[in-house]
Amino acid sequence: MSADAAAVESQPVDSSKLAQRYDRVRWTTEALVEPLSPEDCVVQSMPDASPAKWHLAHTTWFFEAFLLTAKLPGYQPFHPQFSYLFNSYYNAIGERHPRAQRGLLTRPSLDEILDYRAHVDRHMNELLAPGVSAEMAALVEVGLHHEQQHQELLLTDIKHLLSCSPLRPAYREELTASTTTPAAMSFVAFDAGVRAFGHGGEGFCYDNEQPRHRQYLHPFAVADRLVTNAEWQAFIDDGGYTRPEFWLSDGSHCITSNGWTAPMYWERIDGAWHSFTLAGMREIDPVEPVSHVSFYEADAFARWSGKRLPTEFEWELASENCLIEGNFLDDSRFHPIALDGGTESADSRPAIAELYGDVWEWTASPYVAYPGYKPPEGALGEYNGKFMSNQMVLRGGSCATPQNHIRPTYRNFFQPSARWQFMGVRLAENA
Amino acid sequence: MSADAAAVESQPVDSSKLAQRYDRVRWTTEALVEPLSPEDCVVQSMPDASPAKWHLAHTTWFFEAFLLTAKLPGYQPFHPQFSYLFNSYYNAIGERHPRAQRGLLTRPSLDEILDYRAHVDRHMNELLAPGVSAEMAALVEVGLHHEQQHQELLLTDIKHLLSCSPLRPAYREELTASTTTPAAMSFVAFDAGVRAFGHGGEGFCYDNEQPRHRQYLHPFAVADRLVTNAEWQAFIDDGGYTRPEFWLSDGSHCITSNGWTAPMYWERIDGAWHSFTLAGMREIDPVEPVSHVSFYEADAFARWSGKRLPTEFEWELASENCLIEGNFLDDSRFHPIALDGGTESADSRPAIAELYGDVWEWTASPYVAYPGYKPPEGALGEYNGKFMSNQMVLRGGSCATPQNHIRPTYRNFFQPSARWQFMGVRLAENA
Amino acid sequence: MSADAAAVESQPVDSSKLAQRYDRVRWTTEALVEPLSPEDCVVQSMPDASPAKWHLAHTTWFFEAFLLTAKLPGYQPFHPQFSYLFNSYYNAIGERHPRAQRGLLTRPSLDEILDYRAHVDRHMNELLAPGVSAEMAALVEVGLHHEQQHQELLLTDIKHLLSCSPLRPAYREELTASTTTPAAMSFVAFDAGVRAFGHGGEGFCYDNEQPRHRQYLHPFAVADRLVTNAEWQAFIDDGGYTRPEFWLSDGSHCITSNGWTAPMYWERIDGAWHSFTLAGMREIDPVEPVSHVSFYEADAFARWSGKRLPTEFEWELASENCLIEGNFLDDSRFHPIALDGGTESADSRPAIAELYGDVWEWTASPYVAYPGYKPPEGALGEYNGKFMSNQMVLRGGSCATPQNHIRPTYRNFFQPSARWQFMGVRLAENA
Amino acid sequence: MSADAAAVESQPVDSSKLAQRYDRVRWTTEALVEPLSPEDCVVQSMPDASPAKWHLAHTTWFFEAFLLTAKLPGYQPFHPQFSYLFNSYYNAIGERHPRAQRGLLTRPSLDEILDYRAHVDRHMNELLAPGVSAEMAALVEVGLHHEQQHQELLLTDIKHLLSCSPLRPAYREELTASTTTPAAMSFVAFDAGVRAFGHGGEGFCYDNEQPRHRQYLHPFAVADRLVTNAEWQAFIDDGGYTRPEFWLSDGSHCITSNGWTAPMYWERIDGAWHSFTLAGMREIDPVEPVSHVSFYEADAFARWSGKRLPTEFEWELASENCLIEGNFLDDSRFHPIALDGGTESADSRPAIAELYGDVWEWTASPYVAYPGYKPPEGALGEYNGKFMSNQMVLRGGSCATPQNHIRPTYRNFFQPSARWQFMGVRLAENA
Repeated sequence: MSADAAAVESQPVDSSKLAQRYDRVRWTTEALVEPLSPEDCVVQSMPDASPAKWHLAHTTWFFEAFLLTAKLPGYQPFHPQFSYLFNSYYNAIGERHPRAQRGLLTRPSLDEILDYRAHVDRHMNELLAPGVSAEMAALVEVGLHHEQQHQELLLTDIKHLLSCSPLRPAYREELTASTTTPAAMSFVAFDAGVRAFGHGGEGFCYDNEQPRHRQYLHPFAVADRLVTNAEWQAFIDDGGYTRPEFWLSDGSHCITSNGWTAPMYWERIDGAWHSFTLAGMREIDPVEPVSHVSFYEADAFARWSGKRLPTEFEWELASENCLIEGNFLDDSRFHPIALDGGTESADSRPAIAELYGDVWEWTASPYVAYPGYKPPEGALGEYNGKFMSNQMVLRGGSCATPQNHIRPTYRNFFQPSARWQFMGVRLAENA
Repeated sequence: MSADAAAVESQPVDSSKLAQRYDRVRWTTEALVEPLSPEDCVVQSMPDASPAKWHLAHTTWFFEAFLLTAKLPGYQPFHPQFSYLFNSYYNAIGERHPRAQRGLLTRPSLDEILDYRAHVDRHMNELLAPGVSAEMAALVEVGLHHEQQHQELLLTDIKHLLSCSPLRPAYREELTASTTTPAAMSFVAFDAGVRAFGHGGEGFCYDNEQPRHRQYLHPFAVADRLVTNAEWQAFIDDGGYTRPEFWLSDGSHCITSNGWTAPMYWERIDGAWHSFTLAGMREIDPVEPVSHVSFYEADAFARWSGKRLPTEFEWELASENCLIEGNFLDDSRFHPIALDGGTESADSRPAIAELYGDVWEWTASPYVAYPGYKPPEGALGEYNGKFMSNQMVLRGGSCATPQNHIRPTYRNFFQPSARWQFMGVRLAENA
Repeated sequence: MSADAAAVESQPVDSSKLAQRYDRVRWTTEALVEPLSPEDCVVQSMPDASPAKWHLAHTTWFFEAFLLTAKLPGYQPFHPQFSYLFNSYYNAIGERHPRAQRGLLTRPSLDEILDYRAHVDRHMNELLAPGVSAEMAALVEVGLHHEQQHQELLLTDIKHLLSCSPLRPAYREELTASTTTPAAMSFVAFDAGVRAFGHGGEGFCYDNEQPRHRQYLHPFAVADRLVTNAEWQAFIDDGGYTRPEFWLSDGSHCITSNGWTAPMYWERIDGAWHSFTLAGMREIDPVEPVSHVSFYEADAFARWSGKRLPTEFEWELASENCLIEGNFLDDSRFHPIALDGGTESADSRPAIAELYGDVWEWTASPYVAYPGYKPPEGALGEYNGKFMSNQMVLRGGSCATPQNHIRPTYRNFFQPSARWQFMGVRLAENA
Repeated sequence: MSADAAAVESQPVDSSKLAQRYDRVRWTTEALVEPLSPEDCVVQSMPDASPAKWHLAHTTWFFEAFLLTAKLPGYQPFHPQFSYLFNSYYNAIGERHPRAQRGLLTRPSLDEILDYRAHVDRHMNELLAPGVSAEMAALVEVGLHHEQQHQELLLTDIKHLLSCSPLRPAYREELTASTTTPAAMSFVAFDAGVRAFGHGGEGFCYDNEQPRHRQYLHPFAVADRLVTNAEWQAFIDDGGYTRPEFWLSDGSHCITSNGWTAPMYWERIDGAWHSFTLAGMREIDPVEPVSHVSFYEADAFARWSGKRLPTEFEWELASENCLIEGNFLDDSRFHPIALDGGTESADSRPAIAELYGDVWEWTASPYVAYPGYKPPEGALGEYNGKFMSNQMVLRGGSCATPQNHIRPTYRNFFQPSARWQFMGVRLAENA
């Protein structure tokens, strides 16, 4: 999560651009809660999820704790207990409210939290106006990327909450329908060799993307597109969820104890598969990329296909000449779309499609430190390093990720049983 | 819960009085949520508690399901799924939303629920206007008593929810302070003999108060007042919570596994006991009746005192010549008050004080059927009978009970570990 | 559990008779473990059950702790840690090994425990030889009754353990088959009135059977025999386990969460109900009394029958002129038998049959203190009183109860969900 | 787990040598249970552990299921239900007894299981006598390595069981005391480069050690000896278990929820650290390698030291020129020994000591498939591959590992919270 200090310090900071970016990111978060009622914003639907109000406050607390309190002379915290209430897991900053009880905070109200945001924004503008040091700019950058992460969580948490109501209310009504059928899946091959991975250039990155380092890769090939709902349905129809030969032992236990027989949000209604979307219940669109599957399901599907998942390094190498284009938060669809569902013609389609956006892609790589990794000093050092066990890496961003938040070297990570994010599957094989 | 059918049918129903009473009870419920925000009304703070919005809707559903749908020609339910959402436990009425997930219903909003109430009230007035049969009047009566029960739960559930916020917000600010010291506790004796118990006269009662029947009572005496906070503190100071000789085996397990060392809502702040009240955190008032103790704690306290709890029949006999007076919901204090905290002089004080209001009094009686008890036919038969195991009887009402809801024969019941209601202790002894 | 002190002290103690009885009871316990291997004796199959080895040791510890250590000059405990290992729940005696870990004690070995028994028996004989005071005789009596209780538990715990092996091994092979069909059930009526209950005469009783006291009983009738397997099967076939109208709310939760659809040990094999017995798997004998049902199931069955369970006082009154005869531990059948399965002719059959032996009979009475009850002083005071919550009273003994252990006033008690004891059903009704 | 098929088939099988090895391994297992009573052999002290009797039977079942039943004409299984009882997790072989209930199998008795072993051994000798095909020899080899794995588990499971008795009985009495002090820890450096890892030569290996493949390694250094008890005590004394900065988030949760403040089996007695060993309770020997620590603890210790754990490839490279020598099962110490505790002089000591034996060494590598890994066909395919999630790799064997069972490429794996095996720590650093 630490910006590359050397790189950042060597160039002058364009303060007005930073302030502009600050405003834009903060505005986006508030636009995302616009369709929600105060009641929608307060409830926590499961321990993994947080209330929207908490996301609004926690991202604000980040700027207050790491910038205003530390750097703006005379700044008074908006409320003496907010630091306790809205700290997430930074032990160095002090005690905090237990995660599973975030949904009990009916006070402060949503209106007070919006006041809190306005208060902090006002002071942040004051702080940024005269221009800032490279070190402070780097902290602001961290705060903005942090808030962008929470934008994604806010959407996936709200999706989960709304799905819990028997009324199945929509976050908003529109949902783009797909109109085309993706071509057969083919595989693009890569040679063996020692290659460099991780973030090495300019610009922002998290600490866990560093240092840039070498890995030896054996020959491999990756699929030129994502796995679709139709392909997943074939897996279900073939008894995929009930045949132990495809499943890791932990995966088998996971689907059995949770009673999973299809991706999250899938429901059979009158014989046809439907799924809950942010536009309400919809019939499954067979050509869309499958979403809301856990690592265990992705891995079992790959085994059933006679393929495997790519490692994170294979993914990173495959992405090398691809543009960061796709279906992002910025498109406001909040749902994966079919490959050609839009303007792409076969010619304009990249050799490897859908690498970015739509759904995060599970890799076969456990989330561990890169050789030579060092967490940053101070409270921000708790950001990424301490989660390096029992999680798997995902790559590429989703339809809930802001476009300028994602990078080829970006490592997202979740427990192999998680599936409430937009998570899907790209296959790979040995070449 | 069934009104005594014979009694009810023999007298003409005064329809305008019933309509007036309907309006009054319904208005009171809405007045209780007036200090709350939409966010306060949606959250469920523990499985035992329900959100205020759910109380508002469920009591309304009762009139819709048992009266409007059945008796008002052409009535259309307000919303097709509300019956599923707001049924509590009447299996005969159909499937229902799981209890522990009541807090996930951010939709319908509080405003919609208030519309729902207005809609049902309009149609109830229509139904009641021309006058109703004795049978329908009895059903309305049940619905109103049912709603009064939920008024009490609404207050105790909100108290629990607000206590979960580290901000410890007040439901409202005022709290009457006590000014006097209660006299020493003395005991009033009663003779042995066969006596009749349960509801036998006119007026409304629940099914579980019937039939009126005989019990043989041995000589006994009951305390002339409730146990106070000061007396409870002496129990704590004497190691009461850590001495196994005072505790039932289940009680010992209960306090150990929950880590209880004082009544619910008590906290030690800077060396002094405080408690959370509906007016926020307050220092313990030593002369007030102790509240928020479980049956296990009440029983252990009694044993420590060298006394015991009264049976429900001893309580009922002791109450025979007492007026139904005291500190009720109608007084809007929402907190127990000290015995002489007000206008009473020693002379005007009854021989046995505080039998009604302030706190429900735990009895030594498990909640079982009276000899000859029969649950009513139909859906209402599920009301009281099916809870007749593993619960203890409480008597007398509390500061959150409407005055015209309580009777000498009224049997409240809770698990022996429950303590989020206003529950206190009156001692008894063998005479 | 305290012998009636006055009664005991007024008569001279026949010491050689007491020693004889001591030997007989101790010998019976060891005879019961004779068919078991050391491995059978060490394992604990559920937290409610104890290993046979633990029963052997704990009953011995009782004599060591309460008699030898206290009363025999110069007595040295057999092993310094046995008091910690084999104390059950007497807090006054000191710390003890956690109940759920009794099955981890592979050491001391079964042989060592048998040595321990021999050691204590030798010293007990030494203590008893010269004759003992009435107070000591009373303590010995308590110890013997205590051991008889554990004889029953030893058998029911072993039954549970053996049922856990897929091999379904028999404790021993023989099992008397029933040959006759019981007559239709009829009901014997009793008048209303104030009657005395509890132990008042001479001889041993537990503290919880005292004091003898009065109760008013309404007119009632009790069935002249127990409910049979055939009658229970009719309940199952009529959907009894799936119809909420018959079940207490807690009972409904209990059968649902445990997946119960028949009595414990019942299994459907090739379309026919079988059950596991101490002689292995047997087809259900329709004429035998049903056994291994919980209070919840007994209560639901009664409701389905249009009847109810008797209270413990109704049972006691009904038993007044009955001989203590029946199918006991002494008969070594270890399984209930059909009513006429043996020598009884219709004429010799008592008006109310099967009151004693075969199966414990669930009553409608929660287990609470009798009016005026006082637990004994000292460690033995923890014996019965502290379990007086959340349990129901059973009466009459079972096929695993020693005949001279049972009395008309004997109160057994278990949680309403327990069913691994030989527990059955006698119906009652209002007269 | 599949032997390298090509390698094995190319050489003639020396049948008498195989039979000899078979006898030796089988004899060793039985020698290990020799100090145990039948009661010690039946109990399961935690779900992770299995009873000794189960180990004896399960390893035997392996030969019966995969060799005798399949390959010996006319072979009759010893008992029709043993396949159900003693299958561990091979779904392809059929249903099996639930793991957590292995301790309920008091029948069959230990004697019957020893008969079962004799029966299978007799037939295995019959099968092996005439000489066997390379394919069958490979299966026998798998069975023997499988049994050797269970020898280690048998010892660690018994250690856990005995530790549960308050008597703290010894498996056997003797324990070699250490007499010397290890030198200061120094680090041996290795260069960067692409190297080959995994099993590639002749002889047996498990499937998960294959295929031999390349990895790029950055420069690193590994410690020349294991971490000692004295060093671990310094970590404890420095508050290591209570300082969040050293712990992974999951690790922090693990030690908090389990209440861990020292390695497993450590207890403070009269101010001095003791630990439970297979020879009973002993005072901690400061110069011995620390044992019974989880991955989380190992990782936190490394961070506290300013070092890290080696990856499994770093370990494998470091071991390249080391002899497979050390303190193994064959030495019958069953406890780690201090580095010079014996005959080694400083000169004869290898550059990197204690790589083999004493304790398994936690690595920083999650247990995943090697590039190109394919599980074997058939039931044996379930052996290793399906555990490739949420586990960490350990290397080098322990004092409970048979010497001829271990290899430089051997990958042991456990959840990061496991610590009942002999598990210790070697440090590494970036060079």
